[in-house]
Parts: sequence; C-alpha cells; structure tokens
Amino acid sequence: MPKTLNIALLGAGFMGKAHSNAYRQVSHFFDIGIEPVMKVVCARTLGSAREAAERYGWLEHDTDWERVVQREDIDLVDISTPGNLHHPMALAAAKARKHVWCEKPLGNSLPEAEEMLAAVRAAGVMHAVFHNYRFCPAVRLAKRLIEEGELGDVRHIRAVYLQDWIAEPDFPLVWRLRKQITGSGALGDIGSHIIDLARYLIGEIAQVVADTRTFINERPLPDDADRSAEVDVDDAAIFLARFEGGAMGTFEATRFAWGRKNYNSFEINGSLGSVIFNLERMNELEYFDARTPSHLQGFRTIQVTESSHEFAAEWWPPGHIIGYEHTFTNLVADGFRRMAKGELPSPNFEDGVANQRVLDAVERSIATGTWATI
Amino acid sequence: MPKTLNIALLGAGFMGKAHSNAYRQVSHFFDIGIEPVMKVVCARTLGSAREAAERYGWLEHDTDWERVVQREDIDLVDISTPGNLHHPMALAAAKARKHVWCEKPLGNSLPEAEEMLAAVRAAGVMHAVFHNYRFCPAVRLAKRLIEEGELGDVRHIRAVYLQDWIAEPDFPLVWRLRKQITGSGALGDIGSHIIDLARYLIGEIAQVVADTRTFINERPLPDDADRSAEVDVDDAAIFLARFEGGAMGTFEATRFAWGRKNYNSFEINGSLGSVIFNLERMNELEYFDARTPSHLQGFRTIQVTESSHEFAAEWWPPGHIIGYEHTFTNLVADGFRRMAKGELPSPNFEDGVANQRVLDAVERSIATGTWATI
Amino acid sequence: MPKTLNIALLGAGFMGKAHSNAYRQVSHFFDIGIEPVMKVVCARTLGSAREAAERYGWLEHDTDWERVVQREDIDLVDISTPGNLHHPMALAAAKARKHVWCEKPLGNSLPEAEEMLAAVRAAGVMHAVFHNYRFCPAVRLAKRLIEEGELGDVRHIRAVYLQDWIAEPDFPLVWRLRKQITGSGALGDIGSHIIDLARYLIGEIAQVVADTRTFINERPLPDDADRSAEVDVDDAAIFLARFEGGAMGTFEATRFAWGRKNYNSFEINGSLGSVIFNLERMNELEYFDARTPSHLQGFRTIQVTESSHEFAAEWWPPGHIIGYEHTFTNLVADGFRRMAKGELPSPNFEDGVANQRVLDAVERSIATGTWATI
Amino acid sequence: MPKTLNIALLGAGFMGKAHSNAYRQVSHFFDIGIEPVMKVVCARTLGSAREAAERYGWLEHDTDWERVVQREDIDLVDISTPGNLHHPMALAAAKARKHVWCEKPLGNSLPEAEEMLAAVRAAGVMHAVFHNYRFCPAVRLAKRLIEEGELGDVRHIRAVYLQDWIAEPDFPLVWRLRKQITGSGALGDIGSHIIDLARYLIGEIAQVVADTRTFINERPLPDDADRSAEVDVDDAAIFLARFEGGAMGTFEATRFAWGRKNYNSFEINGSLGSVIFNLERMNELEYFDARTPSHLQGFRTIQVTESSHEFAAEWWPPGHIIGYEHTFTNLVADGFRRMAKGELPSPNFEDGVANQRVLDAVERSIATGTWATI
Repeated sequence: MPKTLNIALLGAGFMGKAHSNAYRQVSHFFDIGIEPVMKVVCARTLGSAREAAERYGWLEHDTDWERVVQREDIDLVDISTPGNLHHPMALAAAKARKHVWCEKPLGNSLPEAEEMLAAVRAAGVMHAVFHNYRFCPAVRLAKRLIEEGELGDVRHIRAVYLQDWIAEPDFPLVWRLRKQITGSGALGDIGSHIIDLARYLIGEIAQVVADTRTFINERPLPDDADRSAEVDVDDAAIFLARFEGGAMGTFEATRFAWGRKNYNSFEINGSLGSVIFNLERMNELEYFDARTPSHLQGFRTIQVTESSHEFAAEWWPPGHIIGYEHTFTNLVADGFRRMAKGELPSPNFEDGVANQRVLDAVERSIATGTWATI
Repeated sequence: MPKTLNIALLGAGFMGKAHSNAYRQVSHFFDIGIEPVMKVVCARTLGSAREAAERYGWLEHDTDWERVVQREDIDLVDISTPGNLHHPMALAAAKARKHVWCEKPLGNSLPEAEEMLAAVRAAGVMHAVFHNYRFCPAVRLAKRLIEEGELGDVRHIRAVYLQDWIAEPDFPLVWRLRKQITGSGALGDIGSHIIDLARYLIGEIAQVVADTRTFINERPLPDDADRSAEVDVDDAAIFLARFEGGAMGTFEATRFAWGRKNYNSFEINGSLGSVIFNLERMNELEYFDARTPSHLQGFRTIQVTESSHEFAAEWWPPGHIIGYEHTFTNLVADGFRRMAKGELPSPNFEDGVANQRVLDAVERSIATGTWATI
Repeated sequence: MPKTLNIALLGAGFMGKAHSNAYRQVSHFFDIGIEPVMKVVCARTLGSAREAAERYGWLEHDTDWERVVQREDIDLVDISTPGNLHHPMALAAAKARKHVWCEKPLGNSLPEAEEMLAAVRAAGVMHAVFHNYRFCPAVRLAKRLIEEGELGDVRHIRAVYLQDWIAEPDFPLVWRLRKQITGSGALGDIGSHIIDLARYLIGEIAQVVADTRTFINERPLPDDADRSAEVDVDDAAIFLARFEGGAMGTFEATRFAWGRKNYNSFEINGSLGSVIFNLERMNELEYFDARTPSHLQGFRTIQVTESSHEFAAEWWPPGHIIGYEHTFTNLVADGFRRMAKGELPSPNFEDGVANQRVLDAVERSIATGTWATI
Repeated sequence: MPKTLNIALLGAGFMGKAHSNAYRQVSHFFDIGIEPVMKVVCARTLGSAREAAERYGWLEHDTDWERVVQREDIDLVDISTPGNLHHPMALAAAKARKHVWCEKPLGNSLPEAEEMLAAVRAAGVMHAVFHNYRFCPAVRLAKRLIEEGELGDVRHIRAVYLQDWIAEPDFPLVWRLRKQITGSGALGDIGSHIIDLARYLIGEIAQVVADTRTFINERPLPDDADRSAEVDVDDAAIFLARFEGGAMGTFEATRFAWGRKNYNSFEINGSLGSVIFNLERMNELEYFDARTPSHLQGFRTIQVTESSHEFAAEWWPPGHIIGYEHTFTNLVADGFRRMAKGELPSPNFEDGVANQRVLDAVERSIATGTWATI
C-alpha cells in the first residue's frame, strides 16, 4: 500500500502552477510507491492563495509560510518562490525536519546555497532541486549515449539558452529583473539551467571567463507604468568554460534573442559522435555516429517517444509528443520513486551548490576580467 | 456557481486514458462554466475497469455499459470504445437522454453514423465527436488565416497521415486490424482525421477517386502468436479529391511509412499564401505570405505558444510547448464552454456524418475504379 | 588521346544556358575520355544566336537549325528548344546520323516520342534525354540504397514537384503555357521529372488515375500586356499510381504552390526503411533505417558531399555544396563516359518514351475519369 | 570594348581550383567590363603545374613564382598558396606593380599582413582578399537588412565555423596542421572567416578573451604513415568578443565537431529582429521580424534565389540553387566590376589586416588569460 506524503507548496506563480500540475498528474501516469497529497498552498495574499488552491487542486491555503512549514502534518515543503526566499524557507523547513524541494537557482548567492545544503544535511531530510530539463527524454538519451561511450571523449559543448520576452524596452521591471529579489538576471534564471545540463552530461567545470551586459538600463514599474527604475541585473551573460574532463565550452544566456522563445539548446561533440538538443523541439534529439559507413553518415533526428526512451512509455504511443509541463512530472516521479526506496532525489542541493559555484565564478570573472577557478 | 456534469466513460484503452486526462485537467487550466465530475468508467472486465478507475481518477467503475447509460445520475456519456460499439452505445445513450460524446470515426459505416445523428437529434441532447486535432493551436491559426482571407482562394491541399507502427510483419492482429470491430483500417482510423482537418479548413469534398492496399495479409493473433489470421482491412489508403470550393487535393493514410511516427501533416496553397502543419511538431505552423516584398519572402515557422494563439494563454508562457494530450483538453474545454452557453459542441455528429460520407465515397470509388461523388 | 566530339546546340534559352555550362565545365572536373567541342549554337534570331555564342562560349552561331544538323563537322545535336520542335529536329538529326541529346519531355505526344526513338534506333546513333535530376548525388544515394536492398520492398512513394512562378494572375502567357508549343503544362514540364525519378528509383508504373486544373484561364500576352489569351494547358496535375512492383504512389505537379520555389521532392517507404529528397536542399538525403535499435532510430540527414558519394569527389571537399547546374554537368560527364566506352547514355530515348507513356495515361485517365493502364 | 586582364595564379591546390573556376566562369554569367585572361599557373612541380594548366584552363604553366610575378604581360597576381608564402609573394608582386589578390588569412602574423598592406599601397596597385563567404547571396541579404535598419541595434552575434575533417587521430599531419606553414590552426583557417563575416556585418571588434585546444598532439606524416610528428597549431579556438558598437559575441572555430561538415553559421539578434545563416544551406537565410503582429511572428526561411537577391539574377531561376564555388565567382565578378570602374575591390588588404588584428588579439589573450584589446 502506498505511503502518503503531505506536501506544502510555497509560492503560487508560474512555477507553483507547474509543480502543482506535476503533483496532481504523477500518480495517474507513474507507479511511484508514494501517494502525494496536495495539502496546502501558500501565497502572499489571501486571494491569490485561495485562487491557487481552487485552480491547482490544493486542499487548503494559507498566507503565512512560517506557520505552514511548522505544521506537523506536512512531510515535504516545495519552495517555488522568488530566489530571495529560498534561503530562509529552506532553513526553516529543514529545521522543522521536512523534506525540501526547491526551485533553481538554489540560493541567491553561493554562501546561501551552501547554508541550505548544510541545513538539509544536518536535518537528515530529503532534498531536491527543480532542474527539470534533465527530465526531457531527449536529454536522458543524450546522457545514455555519453554514459555508454557512444560519443567517446567529449571535446566540445556549446550551450545557449535564448529567449526574447524582455527585448522590448517597455517591458516592465518585474521581479525577475530586480537583483534584490532574484540574485541575478539571465545568468541565474536560465544560465543556471544550461550549467546544470552541462554538469549532468559531461561533468564539472573547472574554470570560466565571462562577460555580461544590461541592454536596457531602466524600465517602467509593473504597477505604475509612468514611473521607471533601474535594471540592476544582467540582460545577457556569456562565458567560456574549461571542464575538468578536458572539454571546452561556450555558454550564453540571454532574453534578448528575438525569435528565440525558449531556445535551451546544446551541441556536444565527442571523439565518436555528436548530439544536439533544442527545448523548443524537446521531443527530438539529433545524433551523429561517426562509426557508420561514410555514405550513411548524417545527423539523425530521433523522436524520443518510443517506449525505449526513458519516461516515454508512461505517457503516450510513439509520435504522440509530450510538452513542457511533463518535465516536472517526470522529475517528481523520479524523485518520489527514489524517496520511496529511501534514496536521495537527483538532482538535489548538492547539485544546487555545484551550480551556484559556477554562477559565482562567472561573476568573479566579470569582476576581474580574467579566468576564474570554480 | 458552476453546474456539475456527471460523466460516464465507456472504454478504458488508449482513448479512454486520453479522455480521462482531459476531464481531469480541464478545470485546472480553463474557465469553462461547468464542473465535470468523473463519475464512472466502464470496461469489459472488472479488473481493467477497477484499474482504470484508480489510475485515471474515476469515482466508480462498472463492466455493464447498458446499465451505466441508464443511470439517472449520469449527464454525459463518452464513447471511447472500438468502432463497432459506437452505434449501439450512442443509440442507447441518446434514448436515455444523455449527452453523447463519441470517438471518431462516428460509426463503422455511413448508415450507422446517420442513425446516430438522428438519435441524438431526436433526443435533443448535445453531441460531439473527438476530432481532437482541430484543437491544436497551430491548426486554429491555419483556420484563422484562411477565414481572414490571408491565404486567398484555396487551390491545393496535400494531406497525409503517416505512421509506421504495423510495418513489421509480425506485429499482431490487434482489433484495429479487424474489419468487424474497426470498420476499416488506416482509412477510418487516421484517414478520417485528415478528412476532418480538410473539411474544417477548406470545406466540403465533392468527389474522390481512391486506392487502398493491404501489404501484410496475415498476422499472428495477439493472444496466440503461433496462430495467425487474415488482415481484412486496408493497410494504406490514398485518394484524390475535388472540393466544392474548387480546390484539388491529395490524401494518404498509411501505417507503413517507416520513420513517420505520427506524421499528420497538411500543406495548403492559396492565391495569396500557404500554410504547412505537421503534428510531430504540433507547436509550429509554417506560413508563407506572397504579399511581402520579394526579397523577404519565405516560409516562417510560427511557434504557436504566444498568448495571441488560441488555447495558448491557458497553458504556459511563450516557447513552453504543449503535447498530444492537450488537444483533448482543449477540445473538452471548448465543448464544455459551448454547452455551458447552451450551444452544441463543434465538431459534432453532423461532422461525424459528413466525414463518414467521404470515407464511404472512398470505398465506393475503390469498388468501381472511378470517381465517386459524396 | 581524347577523341573530340563536335556539338551543335539548338535553342539558347534557360536550358541552352544550362547545357552550355555543362559542356564548358565538364572537362575541368571529370575525366571523360572525350573532348567536347562547343562548335555552334542555333537560335531563332541572329542577335540572340550571336549573344548566346559569346556569352555561353560557342565558337559559331546560326539561325537555321536545318542547316546546322546537316553540317558534316557536327557529331552531336543537343535539342534544347520548346517541345514542339523536338520531334522534327530529332528526326532530322538522326537522319543526318548525328547523336541526339534532347530535353524532356521527349516529344509533345506519345506518338512523337515513339517516332523519335525509332529514328535514332534506325540511324544507329547515340541518344540521351536530359532528366538531370537523376544526377543529384542524393538521388544516386537513394538509388544505391534501394538497389542494395537497404529499403527492402518498396511500398509507397509520394512525389511532388511544386513551384510558384505563375501563381500571380498577371504573369504573362509565355510559351510554357501554350499547348501548341509545349504539349502540356505543369504535367509535362515538371510532372515528367518526378515520373522519371519514380521510374528510375522504383520501376515502371502500371496504372494511373488523375486530375488536372487550370486556375487562371486567361493571361496577358508576353509582348502586349493589354491583350490576353486563353491558357490551354494544365496549371496543376495530380495522380495516383500503381507500380508494376506493387508499390502505390501519389504524384503532384503544380506551379501554384506559393513558397515552393523548386520543390521537387519525394519520399519512399520500403519494408526496411525510408528516404526523403527535396531539390531545394539537393545536397542532402534523409534516410531512416528500421533495423537500428529502437532508441537510435530517426531520419538522418546525409550530406552527400563526402567523396563516398557519386559525383562528389570530382567537385569540392565535404560540406562544400554543389548547385542546380551541376546536375547537368554530372549528366554530361556520365553520358560522355558511356559514349567513350561505346555505350548508350542513360537515361535515353527509351526512358523518354516510357515517361511519355505515363503522361499519356494521365491524360487518358482525365478524359475518362477512370484508371488508365500504361 | 572590354579591357583584358592577364592573370597569374600562384598555387594549384584546393584554392587554386576554386579560383580558376571563378576566372573561367565569371564572364559567362556576369557583365564585368573586364576580360580576364588565364595566362599562367604556377605550382611547385612541373607535373602539378602542367596538370593544373590542363585541368583548370590556364594557357601556360611554370614552377618559378618569382619569375612569374616579374613577367611584363601579367596584370594581376593571385596568391593561393599556403600562408607562409603570402608575404614574400605579395611583396614581390606589389614591387613589380601587379595587382594582388590573396587568399586569407592575409599573412601568417599581424606584422606580415601590415607589410603586405603597406606594399600594395606604396605600389598603388589594386588588392583583394578572398573572404568569399561575404559573397553568398544570403550573407548579402543579412548585410542589407542590417544596413536598412531592419534588425535595429545589434546586440548579439554567435558565430561558429564547425568542421570534422581532422577528428580522426590518424588523419595525417598535412600542411594546414603545421604552424611554420600555416601560422595557426582552426583559428586562422576558418576562424578568420567568421571574424570577417562579423566585421562585415556588424563592425569592428574591440576586445576578446579566448581559449584554444589541441586535442590530438601527434599525427602520422602525410608521406610516411609510420612516422609521426607534433601538431603545433590549435585544433579549436573559442572566444568572447566585445564590439565597438556595443554588441557582444561568442565565436568558435573547430575541426572536431563530428557531423558538421562546413558549418559556417551565425545568428545575429538586434533590437528589431534576428537573422541566422548556415553555409551548409547557403541558399537560405532565416529572418525574424519582431514588428509583425504577434500571431504571425516566426523565423522565415528565405530562399535567396529570387532575382531580388544580389548575385542571384545572373545565375538561375528562383529555387535553382548555387553552390560553394559560386561564392568565388561572385567575389571575382564584384572585384572586377570595381576595378573596371577604378575602384578598390572589397574586401581588400585593409580587411585582411583588420582581421589579423583580431587573430593577434586572440593569441595575446590566450597567452595572458585576460581580455586583449584589438
């Protein structure tokens, strides 16, 4: 009989919607060995909390997160708030001996992230970080090919995360553009995703050299378009990387690439072949095998919907694609399965800290104009 | 306050799974003015019925569809069974004054479909048919462009639905390959989808000339691989079409196109431009506008994830794609919204009959070797 | 020491330009065993003939084709005129015992084509027809895969040749739109190309059923835009085909597909795999191999520029693409090599007649509304 | 009446073949106001010189370049040799008052390049550098869009030149892998091309920070596979760039990207739109216009074969693509047209020097591990 797991969700924005969907859907598609119960959602105002509960399927709602994380009937705290709250929430949840699942980037700084990891370790609770793109079946296939040696020694990665949603100068100064709340701009928000994919697929980064830019220095306030304020985060970040394993990489995160809606893309070249991924066509992986006869070589576009692909059999027949939200459901399924077996989810706070070490090195490199060591 | 609508689902296979998901999800994303209640699921065996109830989220389960459709507390009957049961179930449900939503093709023959339409009309109940691909945002954009005159007069359509799941000769003789159960092969199963899209987008077909083929004439039985039996449906169907509005078209439905997993694709050329759609990349529509300056002309790949696209704002931000299952959720949302306003869903049994008239003409053309008039 | 071959070119339009280029270039890239000499070009007016000679590199020019084909110093007559002149020119050239290379379609009718074949046979001269698209390296790779059995039994072909250059109603009534000169419209001009590719790749067609349409019935005269005249050829032609070998096919030729500039494309599905070709990206062939492990299956895009591809090594290093004109140079190289060995070029007038049999059946099918046997 | 221009070609390898083709073809397609005469080709051995003359169409051949550049009847010297000979040849040719056209990169070092520029200036002769990719019609369209303001302020460029021809460890130590002959590896050979495109399209680079790698440190000798020697050039080079105009860029040149044959590709994002180019599909440019209505926005694939595109009308009708070699013919046509009007070709030695300043800064950055100023 499945063990129930009572969940509290802190934050009811875009991420809260995606996480709610995953908890709601996971048991309908996966055998996970745990019965998640969507106990309570917490938002800043009573109205938004109530609406989130009704719309997303939570049994209760609240506005006081400190009270929520103390509740005896809560087993797992999901932190889906802006970045500045990750650190106090995670520390409080860990202290209350709750499992803690947290959105990325883990903290707004490396010290914050390190303290969060120390806290969950000290509390002996389970922890996870929502690097959901690891859970695209196409990314899993890339991982499998690398692990099975099909790409040989990895030599190159070029990873970009390109969006265009703030390219207009009159787009308002939302919280994702305010350093005090979000820590950094494109770098932490989407750069952290491609850092995670690179770490997952080819290992740790040893050194980086970086550059950032803020193209629009002032924007109208969200709630008062007649007033404007300074943008104090990066609009775009680029860096070169040297990997511990010998590979070299280029990285770019920007929200100013007109026409690129959610272009989280990487290409990896090894000594035996290459793979290419693009989130906008997330049901596909391109793979080049250098060992096939010359006249038959070419990048093949693999539709990762056959049941031979991880997380594919649980959904729909071949060719019936999944979407963005499924990456979260896959993540939750995988994390719950691990927890049901007493294992730590992956990725977890250790990955969150390792990720933040790279973000920190990027910022140090910008400050010094030289390579920074992770 | 939302009116509740108690639903009974007949059939718990692939389609039952997809419909269940739509009913379960619709209220979490759409404002529909109706509160759907997943009352009871009906399957052939107690075991499969119970499992479907648990897995897909139905309150009760049953194995006797005739009893289910008589239940006073049921408002809507959803028919997701193989084709041979559509007719008796729809007649019984209509007689019991239930709304009837039915999988496609509506019946296993034109007379069956016509009787079904007569029955729901006589009963004065609502009816719908699950031509879910109309509910891809990209298909809606194609429709909008045509309706707004952006393509001008439509001259050509080339529509294919290509799959490969039975290309192996030892693939078993499942029910979709048995005429008595399914009516026809690729023609009715996937050909009906592209006929529906063509009707939806450019209007009625006047005449067809057709050909079909069965490539593998005998297959092993699903439950006894040592025995085999005849395949008595088409493996592939192709036809030429003349539209009432003057356009000409080519159509092909096959499950023997290796590499094509779910390639439901059309290209439409008008006097002012063209559109191309492909279900495997269902979040995209290609559009060519012949009125732009010559040096700027080209097919543009529109990602239909901006909030300006129908059914997009309810899901996720731009670039965050939806998948196969969302077409059903969109369909259910649209149908419920219409019913909440006292309107008939669209497409409905009238479309089911019109569709079947084309299927019927295709079969007559094959029998005579000449053009058949719809 | 290479044998010289004195060539006379009849016709100096688009095709004359392409053929001239091939004769001029072939020896600079290929070892062909023959030294082609560009002796004389023949056009209707002295001005155009002189200009063609200068621009395209012919030693002499003339306006009297009957005189030219009689010249003792001419070995090979190249017929690049509109279709109505193919027949008289080929008969005269054969009678004068010249080798005859002729543009497609061979004649303006099946009887014409048959007489032309009889004439070259009677004269014992070499003959060739300019179905240049056989000489795309990507098409050769498709042929090789089929011949080596890599696709297994061919089941499907869908072949289209889509253009858009006459989609505007005020495009003038050029000779390619006048039946008396050109024989037929899209059908003979571009339909004959895809028929040739289908015959080359998968064998003879046994039966067809067809439809054609003329969308714009009247057009301005090329030399007097104030006057207009009737378009008496097809703007578009579509047909279904049954192949002798058991495959089924759909074909479409149109010049009204906005956005399709030169979209000569086919997809072939066999029992073991599939290939896709598109002339607009003629340096690529897509190939799907159903025998690879499920999780590695996908259409691969083979760049046919490696030296392992036919006609590739003679040009440039891998990845350095060739263009439209190279198909003619490859054709000429192949034909000359064969002639240097005393062999008949391929394709030749036999292919021209076989092609015209299909065109003829298409027209008979349209007249009767039923399947026509080739 | 056209003025003749007697040309001497120094070097008969891959580049010599491409240049020869351009000189041979240019007058057959373009009105250039100059009559190029392919006077003499010079190669290291008599055999290769004679063969090049015969195969590529040169009237004479020689093995002594110093003699050739002194010939009174020579007007223009084309330097197509490995990089170490560019400097002495250009100096000698300039001194002899010949026009000098030189392959890229201009010299093997910045001082060499600067001396070469000084020499042609002092001699008052015309000069050009073979950055042929500027002459892709698609690149010209990108340039036009930028110049006409259609992209707005340029913010990002990501430029890569990816190949895979030396990815195998047993590929021999050809001259392009030996520093003494070639100056640098991927950086100078293909990196210089993307630097040129970036300069051409969006202006001068102010600063760079770079990294390089040699993956295979020892390779077999070309003429003795049993012996091997050190690879002393870079296999791959990556760098970040800051442009004078404010844009930021990432650059990568490698010959170790399996599956990428000739992937010279860039994406440029401006404040109003974006363009994407890829040499492997050089007849296409992708363009995104952010000013179109939201529901019609998408990257459009423009086939640059309409006569409205630069260098397109001279070749073939729309949709009939050109290939790699045509970039050289376009370059030669453009250069000759300018010279016929008494203008300097573009790009010329000034561009060669500016390019080399960037290469030099890349190497300085690698030496110091910090940003280097151009």
